[in-house]
Amino acid sequence: MNRSTLFSFPAVVLVLLAIVSGPRAMADEGMWLFNQLPKKHLKDKHGFEVTDAWAKHLMRSSARLSSGGSGSLLSSNGLVMTNHHVVSSLLSQLSSETTNYIQDGYFARSLEEEKRCPNTHIDVLQEIVDVTARVNEKVTDEMDPGSAQKARLAQIGLIEKESKEKTGLHSEVVTLYRGGRYHLYRYKRYDDVRMVFAPETSIAYFGGDARNFEFPRHCLDVAFVRVYEDDKPAKVKHFLKWSEKGVSQGDLVFVSGHPGRTSRLNTVDHLRFLRDVAYPSYLEIVYRREIALQQFSQRNAESKRRAKNDLFGIQNSRKAIRGMLGGLQDPNVLQTKLNEERALQAAIAKNPNLGASLEDWENIRFAMQASRDLRDDYNYLEGGRSFWTTLFSKARGLVRFAEETAKPNGDRLPEFHEASLPQVKRSILSRAPIYADLETAKLRDSLGNFADTYGNEHPLVQLVLDGKSPADRAYELVSGTKLIEVDARQKLLDGGAEAIDASKDPMILLARSIDKISRGARTKFEDLVVGLRRDAYANIADAKFGVTGTGVYPDATFTLRLAFGLVDGWDEEGTKIPFHTTIGGAFEDSKAAKNEEPYNLPKTWLDKAVSIDKSVPFNFVATPDIIGGNSGSPVVNRKGEVVGLIFDGNIHGLVLDVVYTDERARAVSVNSEAILESLRSVYDIKRIVAEISGN
Amino acid sequence: MNRSTLFSFPAVVLVLLAIVSGPRAMADEGMWLFNQLPKKHLKDKHGFEVTDAWAKHLMRSSARLSSGGSGSLLSSNGLVMTNHHVVSSLLSQLSSETTNYIQDGYFARSLEEEKRCPNTHIDVLQEIVDVTARVNEKVTDEMDPGSAQKARLAQIGLIEKESKEKTGLHSEVVTLYRGGRYHLYRYKRYDDVRMVFAPETSIAYFGGDARNFEFPRHCLDVAFVRVYEDDKPAKVKHFLKWSEKGVSQGDLVFVSGHPGRTSRLNTVDHLRFLRDVAYPSYLEIVYRREIALQQFSQRNAESKRRAKNDLFGIQNSRKAIRGMLGGLQDPNVLQTKLNEERALQAAIAKNPNLGASLEDWENIRFAMQASRDLRDDYNYLEGGRSFWTTLFSKARGLVRFAEETAKPNGDRLPEFHEASLPQVKRSILSRAPIYADLETAKLRDSLGNFADTYGNEHPLVQLVLDGKSPADRAYELVSGTKLIEVDARQKLLDGGAEAIDASKDPMILLARSIDKISRGARTKFEDLVVGLRRDAYANIADAKFGVTGTGVYPDATFTLRLAFGLVDGWDEEGTKIPFHTTIGGAFEDSKAAKNEEPYNLPKTWLDKAVSIDKSVPFNFVATPDIIGGNSGSPVVNRKGEVVGLIFDGNIHGLVLDVVYTDERARAVSVNSEAILESLRSVYDIKRIVAEISGN
Repeated sequence: MNRSTLFSFPAVVLVLLAIVSGPRAMADEGMWLFNQLPKKHLKDKHGFEVTDAWAKHLMRSSARLSSGGSGSLLSSNGLVMTNHHVVSSLLSQLSSETTNYIQDGYFARSLEEEKRCPNTHIDVLQEIVDVTARVNEKVTDEMDPGSAQKARLAQIGLIEKESKEKTGLHSEVVTLYRGGRYHLYRYKRYDDVRMVFAPETSIAYFGGDARNFEFPRHCLDVAFVRVYEDDKPAKVKHFLKWSEKGVSQGDLVFVSGHPGRTSRLNTVDHLRFLRDVAYPSYLEIVYRREIALQQFSQRNAESKRRAKNDLFGIQNSRKAIRGMLGGLQDPNVLQTKLNEERALQAAIAKNPNLGASLEDWENIRFAMQASRDLRDDYNYLEGGRSFWTTLFSKARGLVRFAEETAKPNGDRLPEFHEASLPQVKRSILSRAPIYADLETAKLRDSLGNFADTYGNEHPLVQLVLDGKSPADRAYELVSGTKLIEVDARQKLLDGGAEAIDASKDPMILLARSIDKISRGARTKFEDLVVGLRRDAYANIADAKFGVTGTGVYPDATFTLRLAFGLVDGWDEEGTKIPFHTTIGGAFEDSKAAKNEEPYNLPKTWLDKAVSIDKSVPFNFVATPDIIGGNSGSPVVNRKGEVVGLIFDGNIHGLVLDVVYTDERARAVSVNSEAILESLRSVYDIKRIVAEISGN
Repeated sequence: MNRSTLFSFPAVVLVLLAIVSGPRAMADEGMWLFNQLPKKHLKDKHGFEVTDAWAKHLMRSSARLSSGGSGSLLSSNGLVMTNHHVVSSLLSQLSSETTNYIQDGYFARSLEEEKRCPNTHIDVLQEIVDVTARVNEKVTDEMDPGSAQKARLAQIGLIEKESKEKTGLHSEVVTLYRGGRYHLYRYKRYDDVRMVFAPETSIAYFGGDARNFEFPRHCLDVAFVRVYEDDKPAKVKHFLKWSEKGVSQGDLVFVSGHPGRTSRLNTVDHLRFLRDVAYPSYLEIVYRREIALQQFSQRNAESKRRAKNDLFGIQNSRKAIRGMLGGLQDPNVLQTKLNEERALQAAIAKNPNLGASLEDWENIRFAMQASRDLRDDYNYLEGGRSFWTTLFSKARGLVRFAEETAKPNGDRLPEFHEASLPQVKRSILSRAPIYADLETAKLRDSLGNFADTYGNEHPLVQLVLDGKSPADRAYELVSGTKLIEVDARQKLLDGGAEAIDASKDPMILLARSIDKISRGARTKFEDLVVGLRRDAYANIADAKFGVTGTGVYPDATFTLRLAFGLVDGWDEEGTKIPFHTTIGGAFEDSKAAKNEEPYNLPKTWLDKAVSIDKSVPFNFVATPDIIGGNSGSPVVNRKGEVVGLIFDGNIHGLVLDVVYTDERARAVSVNSEAILESLRSVYDIKRIVAEISGN
């Protein structure tokens, strides 16, 4: 699956944020900015003319979900299509001890049955404005990198605030090419999102963890939600039409979505650091968390339900990181990157005006070295690796909300800039259920991990554990906190600094007790690692610009991009993998496995085994350049009609993190026909069929 | 489960080997040597008189299984009872793609159907002789610790060889009290072991990983094997009688078995090292291996079968280590140990003649410090952590067999002493099936772990990976080696050094390429860590002798010990856990879980749901001092009759590794009545019922 669960560790995001890359020969490489599309390449190679109208329509029909994925508008009434796995956290939050929508699916037979999801929103991009000059306006030559960055952040806060006031649109300044460019993205933000349709997990995720990142696949990984305004379905001008034809071998297709991050500009030293330090240490956490969640799930059926969404996310991360690590462990991949790097360095040696020097590579190496020393404090304290519970996040959110909102906008931590406050509040006050037993189990594991890493007698560990074992401390914190109740959080939020200072809630006390140290770890890391790297990469990116010329795309930033490529299978050790599967294949797999997990079809499907059309294409693969975060992206044809829905990449596609290849890497989609056939023949939801097919 | 799977990492064994501890007040603490039983305590506290005949009979009726557990002789025809989980590796080896004895059980209806297990043996202790003086005979005051140890090892080789030649018995010199005493153990060794009876895993391990180390329990964790001589059931003089009565609350019971290891003499610094370094790093390996085996298992039903035994072992280790780590993370446990240590140090300060000084504690701290630097090379190379495949073990065994057997006995690595050679050969030539796909998956994971730990470009990693990714290298090694075939191993074994030198087998080449480095890592570790610690612990043990007087038991060494205690439940957060369960409880749990895994009763049981006696006691708990390796130990009453079968400890019992407590720590046993009832009413195996009940 392609969900951007990677984002759950802020440290990883920072470590991995990288910038810019250039396209190769004539491969369909690239995650292109909508205001900087590769029109010439598309015309020359594919004879396709990108018009501004075509692009604008596709842009305004594309959606970004706060649960970490992409989507598309499909009707004038605000119907949004995305993946089941992108909304699985929402399904989990809507469920209870008596309803299990993740397992059983959710089917709103009427508008009235469309159920509002707590604490989520959907953004639809309306406009992109280059604000590079204004962001850098206050930066002077005399400033050191830290001050310069502070000046930029202050400008960004200002620009976002003004834009929001002026347009009413949610406004975000996006740092592209590691500061080479700053673009203002204006979104229509919908924060009333309601669940419309989600199939059973057993068909959405047919084959389970075993088939994740594999192909052939047979997954109906689709869900529909609807955005509302003023308690009514939102009226939208731009939405995508449904194709009547689907895809064929060799078709040119486009993917409009939000790739989370890529690391393609990374220097070889940086990639080695990821390979030898960052990924292995991240995997260690993922392994132990997976086991902890499995153990919790085994207690009984209700425990299994409660842990399901977390477990899915962890397993997905594990498989993704293992895949990326596997790519970096392939000496050929590193050699390719090394050759690229040497070529760029040679070009720089010949032309000092390109703006970069070998010193930039040196600085990145220094930054990595500094990271080795600073990353633990940063990850375990500020990144929250020690505190694997939403209760701590809420406690920290409350503590910092009180402190930060008392400061001028420009002086705050970026996540507390005025423009972000509504989202911060929504997150703190979310009504999503919190289960004390699950939170205790998670916190116990992460406190244990903290103690394992630092040693139990380390002063920081002692400060956090308060003289108890990780197990006892986790129990004490979760059973003692009142933050499970929304009202308690509301009171602390409303009460401001005074209420926070007076609170005896153990989770608040914990968050307060380490806040200064945690902020210190963040500052150090951001100055010595992120800052040093930022400037070096900005220079390298500049140089690459100079060598490659115009027409480069920046590394992914979880903002809207256009990718494209051809529908095609690949050769796997001498065998040609066909480009698509059919619905019949799911029934065959189910039969071979005696319909046992993870190859069990839901009852709805078994009941319709005779009437469903088994020849309908189910999943297909194509070469567009995608990555985690693209989950839920629409796949459209030349006419801009929906022919599929991205839900995964194959295992070879995980290397796209660092380098594009169309040899075996493929994006995996649900065919539009399978979606329609299942809505018609299995679920019999006529109102949605009519809405998306326009009949 | 209590299987001594901990032994799979030699490093852990070495790190944890500790020595001696003293009993407390009047608790039933202790894993007593059969030639040094606490007769006075038993008489004073329990009014029980231990006679030499009683002890000798119990000793010669007790068995040690090479698959890592304990057992007992139950008839004059060599019938041996142990745990299902102790023979699960044997069941796995007997199984094939068409027979799954682990899942379906094994039931020999006649002697002819008793099936020989590859590469396993059973030892029955006949005699213990103190050989301390002779082991130390060649040690002089001028020798440095390394030379002294070498002189001792040479003597041990000699003593074992002579004993074997003189008595025909398998002879092992056991190092007790870390060199305070050396005892020669003479065993009758049976290497023809045949499978008689094993129930289905679903009832042997009812509740699965979820209930492992928990109580209440409902497990029929029993199996019967038979030892043969000259192709006929072995005739034995000593065997245990079956009790007609079972156990009641408060009964005094005895456990005669082979506890694997304990760490009770460990200094507090050493325990902190285990808590902060050794256990966490061991758990990291266990977590990733568990995930790797799960991933392999998910491929299909046959994969699941192939990986089952490895997976069980890993899960068991994970739960055991987590439990031990949890104990060490409890500040009260460390405080108890610290108080003990301070008391001993105070006694030493008052009486310098006790033979130890604070320097010994310092030296242990130095050894721990050295271990931090040396343990990775030792574990990853010599301990085989990088090479998680039996194919590498066999390759190394062949390479070293050729080299070591060319040397005089006293100069060899201890595992190649003349007395051990038959076992080495059997292990290399074992006919147990080897599955290339499973071995590839395991080796890939461990090579990846090696690369993750050292960094991919470390010279050692490059040497091992030969310029390939861990995945490609694992595939190359396993698909290229011929060692999967017994014949290929036989040829190399017979061909000696010449054949090894000429071999182009990639696994042999790998084993050869790192052998010198690996031996070097071992020598360093043994000299600087093990050696330094050995002498310091010997002094501390001496001092403890001096303070505590006679009547101390040594730390566990996987040799025969007697433990004892009372049948009793415990208080769990205010609730009294009853001392036993009944067969009816298993049916209740199965019903509540709709007979789904891991609470699924096998068909044999469901078919007899009406006729089986549900009031029969199933599992019980008692206070004897046991640890991993005691699995399969008989529990006997004052008359020496079998009343139960040890198969586990509860979760509180894992702290027994470092300190005895009878507050909540309990040994968990199968009741003898449940064994008999299931043999009669479920499995209808009359010949075994008659054999054990003597009718």
